[in-house]
Order: sequence, then structure tokens, then C-alpha cells
Amino acid sequence: MKKNTVNLGLLGLGTVGSETLSILHRNKKNIEQKIGAQIHVSYLCDNDLKRLAEKSKKYGIKASNDWKKVVNDPDIDIIIELIGGKGIAKEAIIAALKSKKNVVTANKAILAQNWDEIFDTAQKNNKLVYFEASVGSAIPVIQSLNEGLAANRINYIAGIFNGTTNYIFTKMFREGLTFEEALKLAQLNGFAEADPKFDIEGIDAANKLSILSSIAWSRWVKLENIYCEGVSSVDPIDIKFAYKEFGCIMKLLGVARRKGDTVELSVRPSLISKDHLFSSVENEFNSILLNGDSSGEIMLYGKGAGGPAAASAVVSDIMFLARQVAAGTDGSVPYVNNKGNEPLMFTVIGGHEGRYYLRFTAVDKPGVLSKITSILAKHKVSIADLFQNEPLENRDNCIPILMVTHTVKEALLRNALKEINKLSIIKSKSVLIRIEDMSA
Amino acid sequence: MKKNTVNLGLLGLGTVGSETLSILHRNKKNIEQKIGAQIHVSYLCDNDLKRLAEKSKKYGIKASNDWKKVVNDPDIDIIIELIGGKGIAKEAIIAALKSKKNVVTANKAILAQNWDEIFDTAQKNNKLVYFEASVGSAIPVIQSLNEGLAANRINYIAGIFNGTTNYIFTKMFREGLTFEEALKLAQLNGFAEADPKFDIEGIDAANKLSILSSIAWSRWVKLENIYCEGVSSVDPIDIKFAYKEFGCIMKLLGVARRKGDTVELSVRPSLISKDHLFSSVENEFNSILLNGDSSGEIMLYGKGAGGPAAASAVVSDIMFLARQVAAGTDGSVPYVNNKGNEPLMFTVIGGHEGRYYLRFTAVDKPGVLSKITSILAKHKVSIADLFQNEPLENRDNCIPILMVTHTVKEALLRNALKEINKLSIIKSKSVLIRIEDMSA
Repeated sequence: MKKNTVNLGLLGLGTVGSETLSILHRNKKNIEQKIGAQIHVSYLCDNDLKRLAEKSKKYGIKASNDWKKVVNDPDIDIIIELIGGKGIAKEAIIAALKSKKNVVTANKAILAQNWDEIFDTAQKNNKLVYFEASVGSAIPVIQSLNEGLAANRINYIAGIFNGTTNYIFTKMFREGLTFEEALKLAQLNGFAEADPKFDIEGIDAANKLSILSSIAWSRWVKLENIYCEGVSSVDPIDIKFAYKEFGCIMKLLGVARRKGDTVELSVRPSLISKDHLFSSVENEFNSILLNGDSSGEIMLYGKGAGGPAAASAVVSDIMFLARQVAAGTDGSVPYVNNKGNEPLMFTVIGGHEGRYYLRFTAVDKPGVLSKITSILAKHKVSIADLFQNEPLENRDNCIPILMVTHTVKEALLRNALKEINKLSIIKSKSVLIRIEDMSA
Repeated sequence: MKKNTVNLGLLGLGTVGSETLSILHRNKKNIEQKIGAQIHVSYLCDNDLKRLAEKSKKYGIKASNDWKKVVNDPDIDIIIELIGGKGIAKEAIIAALKSKKNVVTANKAILAQNWDEIFDTAQKNNKLVYFEASVGSAIPVIQSLNEGLAANRINYIAGIFNGTTNYIFTKMFREGLTFEEALKLAQLNGFAEADPKFDIEGIDAANKLSILSSIAWSRWVKLENIYCEGVSSVDPIDIKFAYKEFGCIMKLLGVARRKGDTVELSVRPSLISKDHLFSSVENEFNSILLNGDSSGEIMLYGKGAGGPAAASAVVSDIMFLARQVAAGTDGSVPYVNNKGNEPLMFTVIGGHEGRYYLRFTAVDKPGVLSKITSILAKHKVSIADLFQNEPLENRDNCIPILMVTHTVKEALLRNALKEINKLSIIKSKSVLIRIEDMSA
């Protein structure tokens, strides 16, 4: 059934919700012209009654603090879920689909944790869920992967997915701040939440990697299949040494690499060559590299956070859906395929082979290097580059011994490090950081 | 009407056509699973009878060297136009639409020169034309701009759109080659055609800028509205000096900048800061920067040429269309809006304001600099940076005088240069190169 007006219900009037209203208002003429139909935000919902009343009055839109009223309003075609969090948001998405409404959401955690339930429900009800804002904000990476690269067998995904940690690493690198100082600065400048756990433990990045991987390989790739390591234990001296001695830059990378029928997934602080484009992705910016068998490397870059950028993606989703609603074709073709039948395995990085940066903290005595290297040799770890520094101030006058390995299985290397850590000459836990070569 | 099998007719079996067949064959299972229907290439067409017979036999597909037979075959749902050139290709696209077939094309020249006729015909017949491969090959920039950033008012587009010239500039910069040497190397390595005119004169880049601008501003932006300057007159010493003295890298940039209701468009050799991400886009790679009022800067990067990369985009278009054909919804929503009604003006760069790199070639005598700078001052051109070099070998012992201006109207600066060029101390035509600040 064709429609001249598409009605929206908006749940959540925080930064992204407010900005969404603002874009729909500001660019209304253009947006409606591109859709070929009128857009009408017909219902607002928020549990903050003050801002609800304010927006309701400003834009002349009906309002309620009960999301169920909005979701069950028979006039509404598309529900915009911008509540955030994990409780009501999921309930609202499922309820909206069941009441035959399309959904736009920016909620990465809900998607990563309920992929099948959400898309099964959507398909059962012939409705669509769009979620461009959930990864990389305004960067159209969901669409690029799901549509633009759909012809490809995807072999590699790597991303700087999290603006907060990228901001922190940039400040540690450029200004020599400690992690704690950089985090405080991020909070001060609005690039980190008061409770930054979700970002700095890598959970945010893992959610995004889960979403992209689920699209790339046409089935739900769960968080439990992603090795996840946060950034709070990164020592600024490794950022400094890795750059100075080996020309590498530290980034929190999410990586999914397909080899044959196995996909290895990880989120971890990683070193990349200073000559790679990713090394220039600084501060709150995000970048994602997608490698397909025909497309080769495709890279996308943009601001990964902020109300306007996220709302840009939300409104684009709204427009894409609204065009289909207006034409009466919404939901006849599913957006995401979650029923891939290739025999693929998804695993954490145990079997990962690659190069690694190592830092040993040892007493300044003859024979130290020989002891360390003989254990590495015993475990078949071969050294590509080695650098021994002056004793460090404020670190018990220990000397840092830096190495870059040749390609080696991480599991073997970890065994070697366990043995080395037991040596009496070793004064603190040895540091191991993956060097990501950024290729499939 | 729903369909279980979507039939394709493929016109043109050159590099991209062959690679398209190969992807459809190699990734068939995945592709069909994502579409939810079968893909059947049912008719091939090429005027090279040998390769037509070869592909027809290899894949068991009906063949003809008469495109009209293919276009008029009532079983075919989608015509893939990969003939190239301007003659038959356009006729075939229009004929296909009129016989109620959707079209995929990679033909940038046809689109840039017949935008309205093609999309008007598509809309009149309720069919779709997809053309992702026409700009940036596998880089999903058409879709990103048309869908992903649809909510935005686009203020700025800049692109390294042409792989051939980017390869040439990279070799001139990195290896000190002359333009002619670099062009030969490009031809040797398959990055330039035997007749490179289309690439080196900037026409290819202008076609791509026309397409993106037409999408961004919802109406046909014609080639005649784009100032176009090729690369063949670029002197390697300007590439060297601009980098050494001013930290700038030379690129052939296509730029469209909206200020108020005016959009200025140009394709020209330009200098950009070595700190900008674009400066790392080397060799045959392409990159496009899109700046929207909400999204901020979005950058896309990838290989801009080659059979597999182009075919990646072609097959993705096929998939996107095939899903709609299978669901019986194709053409009910137009892909591109060419009827924008904002009051916009499109102009070449006459009114452009910006910073410029200048090189004067003068005799080595006292008073030379004073003569030049007094003329610049008279024309209100203010100098930000100045560098006078030693006399150059093989250039009549003239001295190069290098300058970077403050922001100035290009037209004023050109007037000043005309006057300076008439001075007897000036021994060859002064060089003016725009410094592009890469922001809206």
C-alpha cells in the first residue's frame, strides 16, 4: 500500500534523539524531496519528563513517557529506538517489530547480544531493522559491507572502532600523558563517559566487531567468540619505545581474519606500522578497513562519535526505510542475512600467528640477555629486531629489553614468556603486544 | 510479482565483464543465499566473436553479437552494460529501460553526459539504474553519498578520482621521474591506456565529479560546469619544491564546494598538506572525502581501477537489484533524485578564493624580487611564505622564486601573473597551483 506520509515514533531524547529531531526539522525539504513522501514525527517518548515536555512543545509533537503507547500506536510506521542501555531498548525493538513496525536503532550492545532474535523477529513480521549508527556513527560502514561489498568473500576486517580509547592513545603518544591523565582529559572534553568501563575494556569495540562480522559472514558472531583486551594496562613507555625503535603506533584494534574456514576475532591494543593509513587516524576518529576477494582493501574514515554524526546515520536509515514504506515495499526483502550456511568456525586468537613486540624488564647484569634469548630459542621464537635501553628512572634501575619477533604462534610465545617471567633477573611482568600487519 | 530466478543479460566481455562472470560463478552460493533467489546469466553479448564464443562455451550461456537481441529478450530482468565508450552503450541503456529492464552500468561518461535522459527514462518505466562501479570502482561511494549521507546537506566533495594520474604523480614525487617517464611506466604496468588523453586531461575525474555532484545536489551537474585542467604540464620541480619548502603534496583533485547557494567545481592539479590523509593515497589508489552538515568529514579509500575491483561493484549492484526483482519491488522507489528544487548555482572556479603556490623563473639580478612583489602588492596579493633558490641547472641559469600566498581571489592573482609574465626579467611562464585546504 502506498503512503504519502510516513509516521515516526521516537524513543529517547538524549543527544542523538535531539539531534535526529533537529536534522529532520532543518533539512525537511530536501529529505522529503528525496523520499518522495512526507515525514511526520508523530510521537515522542522519554522518561525525563522535563525534556520530553520541552521537545513536545518545541516541535508540536504528541508525547508520552510510556514507550508501549508509542510502539502500539497504529499510525506509526517506523520506531526510532534511541533509548540506549539493554533493558527497555530490546523490549521496545521486539515489540515494535511484532506490531508490524520497522525499526531504526543505534544500539550496538542490543544487536551484538540479540542478533538472531532481532532479525528472526523482523523477518517473521516482514519488517526491517536498520542500524547504521551502531558502528562508526556517520561512516556508512554497515551499508558498505552489507550492500556495497556484498559480492565479495570477506577475508579481513580491521577497525579503530572506539573513539574514546583512540583519543586516549593519541594523547599518550603525542603528549606523553599516562593512561589516567589521558582518560581524565577525554572525560573533560566529552570523549569519555563518567563510567568509561564499556570503552576502555574494549567491550564497545567488541560489540561493533561482532556486528560487522555477523554481516560479513551471514550469521551471528557472538561476543564470546571475540578475544577482548582493554587498554588500561598499557604503559606509555611501550607507546614511546614501539614508535622510536620500531616505527609502530599503538591503536586499540578490532580484527577479524578469515583463513580458510576459520575466522579469528580479537579486540586488543595492537601496534601498526607508522606508514599505514590507520596510523594517521587520531583522537576521536574511527576507521574501518574491509578486505574482500574482489574489492581488495576498502577503507572508511570519519568521526566515530557525537550527536550530529550519529543522527546523520539515524536519519539516513529513516529515509531509506521511509522510501520503502511510502512505496509499500518495506520488509519484502530482508536487510540482513543471518542464515549463512557456509561451514565456518569462529574462534578467539589462540591460534594466531604474527609478529609481536616484547618488553622485558630485567636487572642490569651481564648474562641477562643470554638467559632470555635462550628460553625464546627453546620455544622456537625467532627475533627480528632487538634493542636494549639505558636503565629507566623510577623503575628500580631495571633495564628495558625490547624485541620484535618474526612470525610466531602466539600460544608458543606466551609459553616462553611464562618461563621467562619466572627468572629472578626479571623484575616485572613481560609485555607482549601484537603487531598487526593489516592484511588478510 | 515474485521470482525465484533473476535473469541477467551481459553486454561486453572485456576485463570487467569477464571478471563479473567470474565472481558470479565463484561466489555463486553466497550470492544467491544473500539474495534469496537464483541468479542466472542467460545471455552474453560482445562484438569480439572469439571471446564471445569462448565465454559462451566456458559458462554454457547463450550468446549473440547483436545487443538488441539481448536487450529485447523478454526473459531478462537486468541488463549489465559493460561495453564502454559512448555510442552503443547509451543506446543499449535507454533501450533496456524502455523494454522494462533494470540496468547496471560502469559507464561514467555516459552517465555524466546523459544524466537526465537516463534517470527520466528509468523513472518513466519504473526501472532502476545502478552505477556503483562508475566512481572509485569497488569503493561504495555512490551508495554512501546517495543513501548513507542522504540526511545531510553536502557542503564539500573532494576526490583523488583518477588512478592513472595519481600513479604518475606518485612516481614523479617518489622517484623524481618526469611526466613523460612516469606516464610510460604507468602504461607499462597497466595503469594507463595506450591513449591516455581521457585520464591525463582530467576528463575521467571530471566525469566522476559530475556524477557525485549530481547525486549530492539532486540534479544534473554538467561537465561544462566543471573547470578542468590536466596534468601533462606539471613540472617535476614544482612537485619537489612544494614538498621541500612548503610541506605540500601534488594530487589531481576533483573538488566541489558549496558556499550558500553556489557550488564551485574544478578538476586540477592541486597541492595538499602532507599531514592530510589524502597525501598518503598513492599510486593507483583513489580516495573521496564527503563533508555533510551533520556527518562531518567522511573519507573512503580503495583501489580505483582493475577488473576485480570494478566487478565487485558491478556484482553488488546486481545483487541489490536482484533482491528487488525477486521480491517484485524493483523500480517502485527511484534510486536517484534528479529533480532537486533548491535554488543552486553551479559554476567553474572563477570566484575561487584560496591559497596558491607560485613559481617565478627570473634572471639572477638584484631588484628582481622587488619588481615581482610590487606587482603582487598592487593587485592586493599578500605573500605568506617565500623562498628563493639557487640558479637551476639546464634552465638558462634562471633562479626559481617560490611563494605561497595568503587567501586571495584566483582571478585577481591571475591578473597579477599576467602582468608579471610581461616583465623582461621573467624567463618562462609563471606557475600557479592551487593549495586545497580540504575543508568545506
